[in-house]
Amino acid sequence: MITTELRTDPITGRVVAIDLGPFRRRDDFELEPVRLEDAPAKCPLCEGREADAGPEILAWREGGPANMPGWSVRVVPNRHPMLRIEGHLDVRPQGLLESRDGLGAHEVIVETPIHDQPLHALDADRIWRVLWAWRTRIQDLKRDSRFASVVIFKNHGRAAGARLDHSHSQLTAFPLIPPALADKLRGAARHLLKSGKCIFCDLIAQEVIDGRRIIRDQDSILAIAPFASRAPFETWLVPRDHAPRFEDAADATLHALAEALKAVMARIDWALERPACNFVLHTGPLNKEGDAGIHWHLEIIPRVARFSGLEWGSGVFRNPVSPEEAARVLRSTP
Amino acid sequence: MITTELRTDPITGRVVAIDLGPFRRRDDFELEPVRLEDAPAKCPLCEGREADAGPEILAWREGGPANMPGWSVRVVPNRHPMLRIEGHLDVRPQGLLESRDGLGAHEVIVETPIHDQPLHALDADRIWRVLWAWRTRIQDLKRDSRFASVVIFKNHGRAAGARLDHSHSQLTAFPLIPPALADKLRGAARHLLKSGKCIFCDLIAQEVIDGRRIIRDQDSILAIAPFASRAPFETWLVPRDHAPRFEDAADATLHALAEALKAVMARIDWALERPACNFVLHTGPLNKEGDAGIHWHLEIIPRVARFSGLEWGSGVFRNPVSPEEAARVLRSTP
Repeated sequence: MITTELRTDPITGRVVAIDLGPFRRRDDFELEPVRLEDAPAKCPLCEGREADAGPEILAWREGGPANMPGWSVRVVPNRHPMLRIEGHLDVRPQGLLESRDGLGAHEVIVETPIHDQPLHALDADRIWRVLWAWRTRIQDLKRDSRFASVVIFKNHGRAAGARLDHSHSQLTAFPLIPPALADKLRGAARHLLKSGKCIFCDLIAQEVIDGRRIIRDQDSILAIAPFASRAPFETWLVPRDHAPRFEDAADATLHALAEALKAVMARIDWALERPACNFVLHTGPLNKEGDAGIHWHLEIIPRVARFSGLEWGSGVFRNPVSPEEAARVLRSTP
Repeated sequence: MITTELRTDPITGRVVAIDLGPFRRRDDFELEPVRLEDAPAKCPLCEGREADAGPEILAWREGGPANMPGWSVRVVPNRHPMLRIEGHLDVRPQGLLESRDGLGAHEVIVETPIHDQPLHALDADRIWRVLWAWRTRIQDLKRDSRFASVVIFKNHGRAAGARLDHSHSQLTAFPLIPPALADKLRGAARHLLKSGKCIFCDLIAQEVIDGRRIIRDQDSILAIAPFASRAPFETWLVPRDHAPRFEDAADATLHALAEALKAVMARIDWALERPACNFVLHTGPLNKEGDAGIHWHLEIIPRVARFSGLEWGSGVFRNPVSPEEAARVLRSTP
C-alpha cells in the first residue's frame, strides 16, 4: 500500500500530499501525447499570415520589413486579451466588493514560424531567441509605471490549456502582484527578515548537498524537482547564483537556460510520453522591491493528473509521484 | 470585443479576471456531457459488491445486517487514501524542509446503490440521506482531537477528476487547516475584527439587495453566483442565517440544501449540457475556533474550462462567463 506524506512548501507554506513509492505510469494519468500536427489552412501564427496574428511588437529577423515573413520569433498582442493597455488603475468599490479595469498587457510570443515545431525541439540557439524576446519585452514593459509585475507562461498541448497548436508563449503584465507570485514574495520576505538571506539561494545550497531532487546540475542553471511538487515531474529551472529579475539575465545565462530547458524536456517527454505541460516564469516585481529575497525561476508542470475536488476544496495538491522518484527517473533517462 | 474586469474576492482577497458580455457556449469549452453508463462487471460501489468497496463505517439501511445489500447510502474507507488514521502529528524538519505523516481520514460516501444515478437525479429525500451521512461522519470524526478540519468534495464526471462513474463523494479529515479553507478563515477573521460581523452574513445581505447574482432564493438556503467566480457558472449554496458548522445543521436545513442542490444542478445541466462538476463543502474548523466569522457553504464548480499556465503561474483565474450573466441564465432556465 502506498504511503502518503504531507509536505510544506518552504517558500509559500502550502501543503501538498506526496505519494511515496516507485514511479509507474498510472492508469489514470492523462497520457495523450502532444502531437506535431500539420498546419491547418488558417493557423494565424504561421509564417505568411502575419496580418492575422496582428502587428508585431518585437521580432527577431535577419533584415527585411516588419510584419512580413522572414522572422524566427515574433511578439504580437493577444487577440483575446485578458489585460489591455487602455484603462485606469482605480479600484471601484461597491460595498464589500471591489473591481477594476483589466489594465495591463497580454502578448503572444510566436516561438517559431513553422507550425509543427514545439519549443524544446528547436536548437538551443533558437530557444535562446525566444528567451531573448521574453527579456526584451519585460525590459520594455517595466518602463510603464502602471504595471507592477510580469508573468510569462506557456501552454504546451491541449490538456495544458493551449487553444492553438502552433508553439507560442504568453506574457501578462499586471497592475498588481498576482496571488501565485505574491505567495512566493511573502514567504521570501519572511525568510529574508529572519535570516537575512534569499530563501531560493538557501534552498539551492541545501538541495545540492542532499542531491536526491537534483535533475541536472550543469553550468549556471540548476534543474530541480521541488520538495513540495504539486504535479508529477514538476521541475524548476533556477539560476544557481542569486538573480532577482529575469530581465537582468546575461546572454550566457539565457543560453544555459535554453540548454537546460531542452535537456529536461527531452527527458520528461521520454518519461511521460510527450505530456502536455505548462511553463511559468516567476521573476521579481518590476519596481525592484524585495530584490534581496526573490530569485527568478522557470517552472515546468507536466499536466498528466486532473485537478479534482480535492485540489479545489482543500488547496492541497495530491501528487502521485514523489520528486525524489521523478528526479531519479529523469537523471537516468537516456 | 470582450472587456475583462479584475475582481477581488471579498473573502480571500484573491483576484480573478472576468470576461464581461453575454453568455455563449464557447468553442473551447470542454462540453463532454457526463453520461449515465451501465454498470461495468466490476464496479466496487454497486450494490452486491459490498466486500469490494470495504467495511462500512456508516450506512442508511431499512434494517438488515451491515456490509450486505439493502442500503441507500454507504460510507467506506477510501481504497487509495491520501490520509490515514494511523500516524503521528509530529513535523519532521530537514533543514528548510518540513514533512509529516499523511495522518487523517479519507472516506468514500457511496450515494446510491444503483450505478447510473447521479446524485442530483435522486429524489430530494434521497439526497438528504447523503447530506445526513456527511453530517454524521463529521460529528464522529470531530471527537478525534488530532483532526483540525474536514473538507468534503465530490468529483462528478471524468473531467472533474472522477475515477469511478458510480456516484460518490469523499470526506477528508486533516491534521491541519488546508490552504483553501485557511484563506477563507483568514479573510473572515479580518472582517470580524474590523466590523464585529460575519463576512458571509454581510455579503448575503448585500447580494440579496443587489439581486444580480442571486440564482435561487427559497427557504433557508440561498444559491448565489459569487462576485469573483473562478469558473463559469460557479454557484455557492449558503444558509441565509449565520451557521458556522455543517455538522450542526438541522434536518430541515439539510432538506432545503437537498432541494436547492437538485434545482440548481438541473439548471446547470441545461445551460452547460450536463457538465462535469466539483462540489466542495467548506465548514468551520473542528475546534470551533472563529465560529463567529465562518459560515458553512457548498461550492458547485462546473469544469468546462481547462486551467492553463495563466492560472498556474499567476493564480488569477480567467472566467469567460460573468456571475451576473450566469445567474441570469440560471434564473431563466425552464
